[in-house]
Amino acid sequence: MNDSKPSPRFLLINPFRLPAGSRFIHRPVEGPKEIQLVNYGDVEHVLADVDWDLHPGPLTRHGDWSATNREEFAYVAADRLQIVRDACASGKYDAIVLLGGAEPGFQDAREIGKSFGIPVTGCAFSQMHIASMLGDRFSVIDLYEAHAKYFANIVVQHRFAERCASIRNIEYPLPRPGVEDRFPVGLQREKALAGEPSEMLETCVREAVAAIEDDGAEVLIFGCSATYWLRPFLQRRLNELGWDVPVLEGQSAAIQLAKLLVGLALNASGLTFPSSRPVKTRRRILP
Amino acid sequence: MNDSKPSPRFLLINPFRLPAGSRFIHRPVEGPKEIQLVNYGDVEHVLADVDWDLHPGPLTRHGDWSATNREEFAYVAADRLQIVRDACASGKYDAIVLLGGAEPGFQDAREIGKSFGIPVTGCAFSQMHIASMLGDRFSVIDLYEAHAKYFANIVVQHRFAERCASIRNIEYPLPRPGVEDRFPVGLQREKALAGEPSEMLETCVREAVAAIEDDGAEVLIFGCSATYWLRPFLQRRLNELGWDVPVLEGQSAAIQLAKLLVGLALNASGLTFPSSRPVKTRRRILP
Amino acid sequence: MNDSKPSPRFLLINPFRLPAGSRFIHRPVEGPKEIQLVNYGDVEHVLADVDWDLHPGPLTRHGDWSATNREEFAYVAADRLQIVRDACASGKYDAIVLLGGAEPGFQDAREIGKSFGIPVTGCAFSQMHIASMLGDRFSVIDLYEAHAKYFANIVVQHRFAERCASIRNIEYPLPRPGVEDRFPVGLQREKALAGEPSEMLETCVREAVAAIEDDGAEVLIFGCSATYWLRPFLQRRLNELGWDVPVLEGQSAAIQLAKLLVGLALNASGLTFPSSRPVKTRRRILP
Amino acid sequence: MNDSKPSPRFLLINPFRLPAGSRFIHRPVEGPKEIQLVNYGDVEHVLADVDWDLHPGPLTRHGDWSATNREEFAYVAADRLQIVRDACASGKYDAIVLLGGAEPGFQDAREIGKSFGIPVTGCAFSQMHIASMLGDRFSVIDLYEAHAKYFANIVVQHRFAERCASIRNIEYPLPRPGVEDRFPVGLQREKALAGEPSEMLETCVREAVAAIEDDGAEVLIFGCSATYWLRPFLQRRLNELGWDVPVLEGQSAAIQLAKLLVGLALNASGLTFPSSRPVKTRRRILP
Amino acid sequence: MNDSKPSPRFLLINPFRLPAGSRFIHRPVEGPKEIQLVNYGDVEHVLADVDWDLHPGPLTRHGDWSATNREEFAYVAADRLQIVRDACASGKYDAIVLLGGAEPGFQDAREIGKSFGIPVTGCAFSQMHIASMLGDRFSVIDLYEAHAKYFANIVVQHRFAERCASIRNIEYPLPRPGVEDRFPVGLQREKALAGEPSEMLETCVREAVAAIEDDGAEVLIFGCSATYWLRPFLQRRLNELGWDVPVLEGQSAAIQLAKLLVGLALNASGLTFPSSRPVKTRRRILP
Amino acid sequence: MNDSKPSPRFLLINPFRLPAGSRFIHRPVEGPKEIQLVNYGDVEHVLADVDWDLHPGPLTRHGDWSATNREEFAYVAADRLQIVRDACASGKYDAIVLLGGAEPGFQDAREIGKSFGIPVTGCAFSQMHIASMLGDRFSVIDLYEAHAKYFANIVVQHRFAERCASIRNIEYPLPRPGVEDRFPVGLQREKALAGEPSEMLETCVREAVAAIEDDGAEVLIFGCSATYWLRPFLQRRLNELGWDVPVLEGQSAAIQLAKLLVGLALNASGLTFPSSRPVKTRRRILP
Repeated sequence: MNDSKPSPRFLLINPFRLPAGSRFIHRPVEGPKEIQLVNYGDVEHVLADVDWDLHPGPLTRHGDWSATNREEFAYVAADRLQIVRDACASGKYDAIVLLGGAEPGFQDAREIGKSFGIPVTGCAFSQMHIASMLGDRFSVIDLYEAHAKYFANIVVQHRFAERCASIRNIEYPLPRPGVEDRFPVGLQREKALAGEPSEMLETCVREAVAAIEDDGAEVLIFGCSATYWLRPFLQRRLNELGWDVPVLEGQSAAIQLAKLLVGLALNASGLTFPSSRPVKTRRRILP
Repeated sequence: MNDSKPSPRFLLINPFRLPAGSRFIHRPVEGPKEIQLVNYGDVEHVLADVDWDLHPGPLTRHGDWSATNREEFAYVAADRLQIVRDACASGKYDAIVLLGGAEPGFQDAREIGKSFGIPVTGCAFSQMHIASMLGDRFSVIDLYEAHAKYFANIVVQHRFAERCASIRNIEYPLPRPGVEDRFPVGLQREKALAGEPSEMLETCVREAVAAIEDDGAEVLIFGCSATYWLRPFLQRRLNELGWDVPVLEGQSAAIQLAKLLVGLALNASGLTFPSSRPVKTRRRILP
Repeated sequence: MNDSKPSPRFLLINPFRLPAGSRFIHRPVEGPKEIQLVNYGDVEHVLADVDWDLHPGPLTRHGDWSATNREEFAYVAADRLQIVRDACASGKYDAIVLLGGAEPGFQDAREIGKSFGIPVTGCAFSQMHIASMLGDRFSVIDLYEAHAKYFANIVVQHRFAERCASIRNIEYPLPRPGVEDRFPVGLQREKALAGEPSEMLETCVREAVAAIEDDGAEVLIFGCSATYWLRPFLQRRLNELGWDVPVLEGQSAAIQLAKLLVGLALNASGLTFPSSRPVKTRRRILP
Repeated sequence: MNDSKPSPRFLLINPFRLPAGSRFIHRPVEGPKEIQLVNYGDVEHVLADVDWDLHPGPLTRHGDWSATNREEFAYVAADRLQIVRDACASGKYDAIVLLGGAEPGFQDAREIGKSFGIPVTGCAFSQMHIASMLGDRFSVIDLYEAHAKYFANIVVQHRFAERCASIRNIEYPLPRPGVEDRFPVGLQREKALAGEPSEMLETCVREAVAAIEDDGAEVLIFGCSATYWLRPFLQRRLNELGWDVPVLEGQSAAIQLAKLLVGLALNASGLTFPSSRPVKTRRRILP
Repeated sequence: MNDSKPSPRFLLINPFRLPAGSRFIHRPVEGPKEIQLVNYGDVEHVLADVDWDLHPGPLTRHGDWSATNREEFAYVAADRLQIVRDACASGKYDAIVLLGGAEPGFQDAREIGKSFGIPVTGCAFSQMHIASMLGDRFSVIDLYEAHAKYFANIVVQHRFAERCASIRNIEYPLPRPGVEDRFPVGLQREKALAGEPSEMLETCVREAVAAIEDDGAEVLIFGCSATYWLRPFLQRRLNELGWDVPVLEGQSAAIQLAKLLVGLALNASGLTFPSSRPVKTRRRILP
Repeated sequence: MNDSKPSPRFLLINPFRLPAGSRFIHRPVEGPKEIQLVNYGDVEHVLADVDWDLHPGPLTRHGDWSATNREEFAYVAADRLQIVRDACASGKYDAIVLLGGAEPGFQDAREIGKSFGIPVTGCAFSQMHIASMLGDRFSVIDLYEAHAKYFANIVVQHRFAERCASIRNIEYPLPRPGVEDRFPVGLQREKALAGEPSEMLETCVREAVAAIEDDGAEVLIFGCSATYWLRPFLQRRLNELGWDVPVLEGQSAAIQLAKLLVGLALNASGLTFPSSRPVKTRRRILP
């Protein structure tokens, strides 16, 4: 390897940050970047040749619980855009990686990145693109119905409707006022790591098999980032069942896509994200 | 008519409001609702049997110019949602009509409306639905490329890509820092009203004819609301040319659609906008 | 409300009329319009501000039973067109509402209406358009397979194939020579009204749930008009099961759509229904 | 060849017949079948191994001019169905070939044919199917806009929208009250046969080339049967221009398709045209 | 019938030939053409008026077992092309019929045929085209998963994805090193002929019914040619179950399609298979 | 950067090799890999961190000219597969990169790679995937019509038809017997490098602008690899014209995609390329 080639500089930005004392916190909001980046162990290898920072994301203003519906996503989307703008303006980064499964504000962030010549990748976008390289159709495993439906809109927006076999909902809603946390994700993960039965993993396997057998999925990806930890577990279980099907997760996908784009010096087409002051314009745009 | 039936109560909400002293103001931001509602004369007849209020929309926080790109739309979308939430919670309205061509935050507002049992309509959504009742394909006349491309995404999001023949861009960008106002919309309208040649109207006619002859449009609608005033002029001009094609504009469309929904006591499916606390959930969602 | 605004004048036309003595009669063919209009109670509220007449439809010439296949629909379609033409020519109506689920002759009637500047709405067309305003996909509950397949063709013709999740057949065929009436619709309705188990309603609920869970339906509409009475019953049952999904029926949909069009002074594009003596013609038409 | 194999027996049925004295007659309505079948010379070779009869079609009841709009097609469709039913019931035919470009009543006639086990072919249907065997997209040359738009609906109904590059309208409307016959088709054909310039042929060549170069057509077919005579002329002209593109016409296509189906003892699926008394029914039909 | 009309001359070419001593042989590789053409009895009637030869196909070079994956199909495709070229150049044939279900090299062979003015038909292509004449959607019964997936690609390549309801895999893989022949096809057929239970037929019936009830199939066709013998058995069984659905097989379909094309003097569009030395070229090709 | 991480080992394989003395040679067939890899300078930066070998590809057996039609592509496809198999079996490579624009045998090579757990990328596939990350639609610039049409089939096969705005043909056919080399590609390139007018570049610019303005392209890619050298020239020219649109070429795209896959330890889904001895199989495959 050409060791004179410098590592690309990435900023990873969480979708939002809960206030420190919130009883709804489900991922670390303090500590070194390797702690704040959930499932760090699963992406460590793809970050090995990256010079990266982590931004904890905007503090939620809708309350002290995770954003889980359209309204709340709209708030965190707007607030994260300002972080993206500042990061691009700082000149410190070659690419921005938006963390979080639902990609709030992703397309808007790409517009900002485009104006600075900096690629921005998101976890849903990247999983869909990579999944489409591997098989003819993918299915999404998602955490709860409102997220799954929101994700369905992202699939349409990213023009992957023909590639998406289904979105399979395992219905483990994130806690919020009025919604208790029956199966805390962290606990589920600990059980799975300990080799104990995890309800969440079992449901995930059941839905993944249904996606393969009933919906025509040939690749599996994840929706809400709170499901990403399931990737290695689901991959192993499917292989054990005899299903030779790749399972992706969003963070490594978004990091790898950012590397690919940086390596080709690409970000996005100026026709897809027209400048507010374009040099040349089209008379006719197609939907 | 059964005069014991009360008129429906609608709140019309502008997408944003520029600060009072801005040099970029292009529609009245003070005065009675009939003044603040642009092109009031064109929608007066459909408001005749409605009990309506007008909200001027959120004050822009990105600057003192109109929102014209994705980033700015994201900011006004988030801020308008709080107005929608308050209006729904007030119990004073049977429907919310979101003004403005690009519908920032429309789908999110529908989610809020759904949770209160109140329909929310938008001008792009309503024009597309009504256009589809009249002909097999519609084209959109839009004001400048960045808006046209944003609108293209709305078309896809509303799943009208197969119905949309094209988006025709007349490239009369709204003024903003760095973009001067070569052809102020207000002046163009005055010229057209006075029967003088209006560059904007002429471009609009040329693109509408191209949409009909080259793209297969059978109905015409408008993108940015700053083009809505063109509707009666374009309709007349096309008829004079021999083209028997309906031309819609967004405000009357959104008001009529709201009436239709209120009359049927409908707002939106709970499966399309799932509650944060749903009673019943699906295992499988399709994109 | 502006009480000087006159009520719109509508003519509602039944698809056909069985001869008075027929043993296959399943809806009143005599009496005041409120009696001849089936399920009047379900549409009374949307007719409250309409000045309406009812035409009983053409007398069947294929026999004394209901039209239930393509051949018979073609006969009643042709015969109803003459009623439409006469109604348009009379100058007495602002809109024509074609009753009946399968819309025989609907597109042809729109052509006639267009030539008089009068909108014509149909029950399948209207339900599909309104359903698409409420959710991403709708399913159709239909009465028997031949009707369901005929309806499938209407869905394609109206270019709603991408929006239609499925047509669910409950297989309660209308009686005709050789097909006995095992479960008379009228009797089924009486049972349902009396709170007794109705086989037809139970099948309808089962298929509606399958449409939601298996096919991806987010809105439900009806095919054959002999199923329209089920709307309020199905709506209640689905809600009781926890499914927050709108259920439409054709008559109120077609009446509301007619009002919307009359309010906007629209009927249909002259490019979609070209005149036999057009002023301007296109070189290129797209399918 | 196995000469013990009997020739298949076909009935060819014209779409309608004008009354004998009409000034709008544009094809022979008397004389032997070879005279009444227009362009007999162009199909003689495919009829060589067929035992065929010709039915002149139903007498028009809308007036003494050709059916040229939706309303008139609906009348002749209904009236031709009775001829189809009688022909099937006679036991004299192995297949029915519906002549005429717009196929009024074709799908309904197939339903009748299906109930007798007899295939029914039409000229639009057959051209589209054969064109799809030859190239990836076809364009249609049609006679006037109302026909072209009607044909567009047939393309959709037959589910060939993705295969149809365009319908190219040469705008030579058939004469009717109020529409004079500026370029009588018969005269145009005589000119072409005499090697003189024919306006109709020139327009046809221009539109065919546009279909190839601009629309992506790889095969050409015809809409209204009054254009069928153009086939050999257009084929030659395109070849002379260097375009190696097949040109079809409807009558030979419909006859050959009927032979193919008779040879395989096929007519239509009973699931596509369900019987009024089906043995087995489906719960779920897709659009 | 005009007995002076000569019979068309066809060459039928098997996809490959196993070496004489192979233990994997599953169809005769010696003897008269009626013996080497599998299921001759099922196609005898469509060959009655054809003057035909049979070519045994290229000897396999990948080994002494049947080609069953992409790599092996690529080898036999290349080798069969040379047979096609020689046959076309010989001037002895009016059409080439490629036998075998997966059509290796079919599109390439059409290019060769086009350059000689000779139509080439294949069994998958022909079945799909004819199935589309009979119903709105077809399903494919295929022999094992790798073939089914290969066939899925053919469906896409032939642009029938919208018409294809599903490919149903019965998983009876052809024997090859490492894959034993648990249910020899020949034995299964003998059992079926003897009226004894055949596992293969039972699985086929089960999957065909699932295709009808669950997938929306209205016509059934076959994938791998080793399933073609099932056609009459499956047709009878489905009819006995009450399903009035046509079942096709590839050889008769390909022969009939060849006759249709020869009868119309057609082969393929020169725009679909451009010459290496075209006279005229397009600037713009559509996918 | 983690310099203990070894560079990935790639084998780049040319599509074919002309015999040494051929008068049709248009790229070096001898010398070090940097010479034999055409346009090495354009891909040097993406190969900097790769440990790569180059295979010259199979010797053509159809003649001593480049493969330019379907038949010839089928021959070189089959012959290159054996090189792929040997390379995979050697254990020396982490990925295989197939050079050449038309990707002969690419899908078949992926099947082989899958069986060894090694990703295989191709230049058309990779360009399409990356283009789809950058904009909503891409157009392809191709060298001559037969290649463009072949490429159109690849677009369909890779399921990018909805993303592909057009394939623009500049018609500079590669020389072969009967086709002289009017504009040798090498000479065109030299002219362009020298800043002199190059007919090929001018045509390329004209077609690229047409793709943007008329077809809706937002990204540009190349078809035949003999056009790849145009990338930097076209990019500059479009930028100078004011079009901010990314232009890709195949070799760097295929190399970067291979890196992305290797970095994620992915190759292809076992359901998309089923093994000849699968552990688990599906009953139902979708097209």
